[in-house]
Amino acid sequence: MLRHVVMFRWNPGTTPADVADVQEGLGGLPAVIPEITRYQFGPDAGINDGNAEFVVVADFADVDGYLAYRDHPLHRALIGERITPRLAERHAVQYIIDDA
Amino acid sequence: MLRHVVMFRWNPGTTPADVADVQEGLGGLPAVIPEITRYQFGPDAGINDGNAEFVVVADFADVDGYLAYRDHPLHRALIGERITPRLAERHAVQYIIDDA
Repeated sequence: MLRHVVMFRWNPGTTPADVADVQEGLGGLPAVIPEITRYQFGPDAGINDGNAEFVVVADFADVDGYLAYRDHPLHRALIGERITPRLAERHAVQYIIDDA
Repeated sequence: MLRHVVMFRWNPGTTPADVADVQEGLGGLPAVIPEITRYQFGPDAGINDGNAEFVVVADFADVDGYLAYRDHPLHRALIGERITPRLAERHAVQYIIDDA
């Protein structure tokens, strides 16, 4: 399986309503991108100082599944309209995981 | 459930053998830290440019499970001896996930 992990830090002035808007958009993606086998996103829990502010972890059967997600027009629109305008910092990894 | 996600970029000169040494250390942790319910780590797959180089995703039943991991002496030793000396950049998030 292929797992995609991405973390964000938001621009100063980004509000909880802004983050909720991002979450609402992300929440709609699994219904339209069946290649997503598991999708867990959310804001940092506030346990440690210095953390990033939001994370998305998406699992796929294989690299092609991830690419279908990465390049899906609805995903690209969400990124362009709701994420990038609020984005201060982005860090990502895709990696192979066990099917466990 | 509580998920911990951390990404690394390595110092210049970090070798594949260095990364294998980190992976060997991480691989030993679930046997000694039973609070880890799922543990998936590895190097970036090289699909996209600009990514971080390594990621660890660790799942726990709750925040206390994560704290047991975070503060476990074997984990701290691994960080101090094998990770921090090679670390250029670190980004982390802990967040609540569904039990799915």
